[in-house]
Amino acid sequence: MRLGTVRRDGATRAAVGDDAGWVVLDERDAQELIGASDWRDRAAAALRHPARTAIDETDFAVPVPRPAKIFCCGLNYRDHIVETGRDVPEYPTLFAKFADTLTGPVDDLVVHDTAKLDWEAELAVVVGAEVRRADREQARAAILGYAVSNDISMRDWQQRTLQWLQGKAFDATTPIGPWIVTADELEPRDGLRITCAVNDEVMQQGDTAELVFDAADLVSYVSGITVLRPGDIVLTGTPGGVALGMPEPRWLRDGDVVTTEVEGIGVLRNTVRFE
Amino acid sequence: MRLGTVRRDGATRAAVGDDAGWVVLDERDAQELIGASDWRDRAAAALRHPARTAIDETDFAVPVPRPAKIFCCGLNYRDHIVETGRDVPEYPTLFAKFADTLTGPVDDLVVHDTAKLDWEAELAVVVGAEVRRADREQARAAILGYAVSNDISMRDWQQRTLQWLQGKAFDATTPIGPWIVTADELEPRDGLRITCAVNDEVMQQGDTAELVFDAADLVSYVSGITVLRPGDIVLTGTPGGVALGMPEPRWLRDGDVVTTEVEGIGVLRNTVRFE
Repeated sequence: MRLGTVRRDGATRAAVGDDAGWVVLDERDAQELIGASDWRDRAAAALRHPARTAIDETDFAVPVPRPAKIFCCGLNYRDHIVETGRDVPEYPTLFAKFADTLTGPVDDLVVHDTAKLDWEAELAVVVGAEVRRADREQARAAILGYAVSNDISMRDWQQRTLQWLQGKAFDATTPIGPWIVTADELEPRDGLRITCAVNDEVMQQGDTAELVFDAADLVSYVSGITVLRPGDIVLTGTPGGVALGMPEPRWLRDGDVVTTEVEGIGVLRNTVRFE
Repeated sequence: MRLGTVRRDGATRAAVGDDAGWVVLDERDAQELIGASDWRDRAAAALRHPARTAIDETDFAVPVPRPAKIFCCGLNYRDHIVETGRDVPEYPTLFAKFADTLTGPVDDLVVHDTAKLDWEAELAVVVGAEVRRADREQARAAILGYAVSNDISMRDWQQRTLQWLQGKAFDATTPIGPWIVTADELEPRDGLRITCAVNDEVMQQGDTAELVFDAADLVSYVSGITVLRPGDIVLTGTPGGVALGMPEPRWLRDGDVVTTEVEGIGVLRNTVRFE
C-alpha cells in the first residue's frame, strides 16, 4: 500500500494507493491518517472499491509534514566507506533535522546565502508506532514504511563548525516523498537501487543492501535514546557521489533539476531556485 | 514579569508572577499563553489584582513544553575558550534537541545506559515571536525572556561519533525553568552569574557577560537558517567546570543533586536517578 498527502483546493488530504491508483480520504494528510488506531482497516476498505482518483505528480505534498523528530544518519553505505579508506563505524553518526526542513516531492528548492549547495539521496524510514528501547525485531515492527528523500546540504554552513546541523537545517530544502510504501511491500536489506541525478547526469548510484545500519538497526538504536512516534522520520544516509567528494565540486546552481529515486518507491524531482 | 507552568490537579496551567507572587491562568501552560496575541495585556491585567496563589517549588513544570525547535550553542564562554587555549570562534557551533529532552525544574533526572553523565549549566533564551532572517535588533525584539537550563550530557554517547546529538537527546534529561523572566526585566549582556553545584560543591561559575554570541546574536544567526516561533528555545552554552574537562572526571552518580542557578532568574534542583 502507498500512503500520500495530496494538495486539494488549497488544503491537503491523505490518500491511499495501490497499483490501480489512488483514493483520497478525509484526513488532512497521511500523518493524521496513521494517527488513528484503525487506519489500516479503513485504508484497506477504501482500496476494496474499484474507483480511483487521478492525481497529478505536482499534487503530492510532504507525506508526514509534522514529525516531532527527524534523525539523520551520516556515512552509512559500506561500499562508499571502504572506497574512502575509512573503517566501518561501530555506532551510527546521528544528527537532527526539524520538520520545517521538509518540502514536497516536486517542489522547488528555494535557497539563499549559500555557495556550496550539495545533494544527498537517501532512503527515508517513517515510523508507524510509538517505540522505546526496542530491539531489532520490535523496531522492524514499528516501521510504517519507506519514502525517498534528499538531504540537500549547505556545505559552507555545514563546514563552519564541527557540528553539521546548520548546513542541514534550512527551511524547505529536504524533499521527501513522493509517498510512503508500507513496510510489508519492501525490504531495503534485499537491495534497492538509489540514485541521484543533476539535470541529466547521474551523480549517485547506490544500493540499500550496502547500508551498515539498516532501517531496523537505526530505529532500534534511536529508540534507545528517545521515544519515536508515528510520523517520525529516520534518514539512513547517502551513498558516494556527492559534490563535496569531488576534486572540483560541482555545486548546485539556479535552475538545476535534482532527480532522486529509490527503486520500488518513486522519484523526487526538484528544481533549485536561488533567491 | 515571570511566566511559568504549574501542576494543578493532574494537569498543568499557565501562571504569571511578579515580586508579590503568582496568579494562575486558564491556559494549560505558558506556551499556550504566549501563543495568544493579547497575552501581555491579559497577564498585566491579572497582576493588577492583589490576590496571589502560593505555589510550591515542586509544582513548577517545563514552562514551554512543546518547542518545535531547540537550538543549542557549543563552546560560547569567552573566558573558558581563552582558558583552554582555543581561538574565539567566528560562527556559533549549533546542535539540536527535541522537546522530549525537557524536564521540570525540580524533577528527577532518570537516566539509563550511561557511565559518563555530566552537567552543563546554561542560560536559556525563549522566543516570543515568529522571526526569520532577523538582524540583531529584530532578534532582540523577538526574545520573550530567559530561563535556567542544564544540558545534562551522556558523554559516552556524545563521544561515540563526531556529532554530539546522541549524547544530548535522552528523554527528560534537560531541566528548564523554574520560569521565564521576561526580557524587559533582564539583560544577560550586563552580566548574570551562572553556577552549577553537585550536592554542595560548586562545579561551574560563569558570567553571561562572557558569552561570545549573546542571546540576540544567536536568535539572529539561527533565524537566518530557519524560522523561529513562540516557545522555541536557544540554549546559549556552558561555562568551564564540566566533568569532561577534569583530569579525572567526576561523573554524576545516582542520588547526586544538581543545582543550577542563573542570577536574576532562579534555581533548578534535580536529583539523578539511575534506572
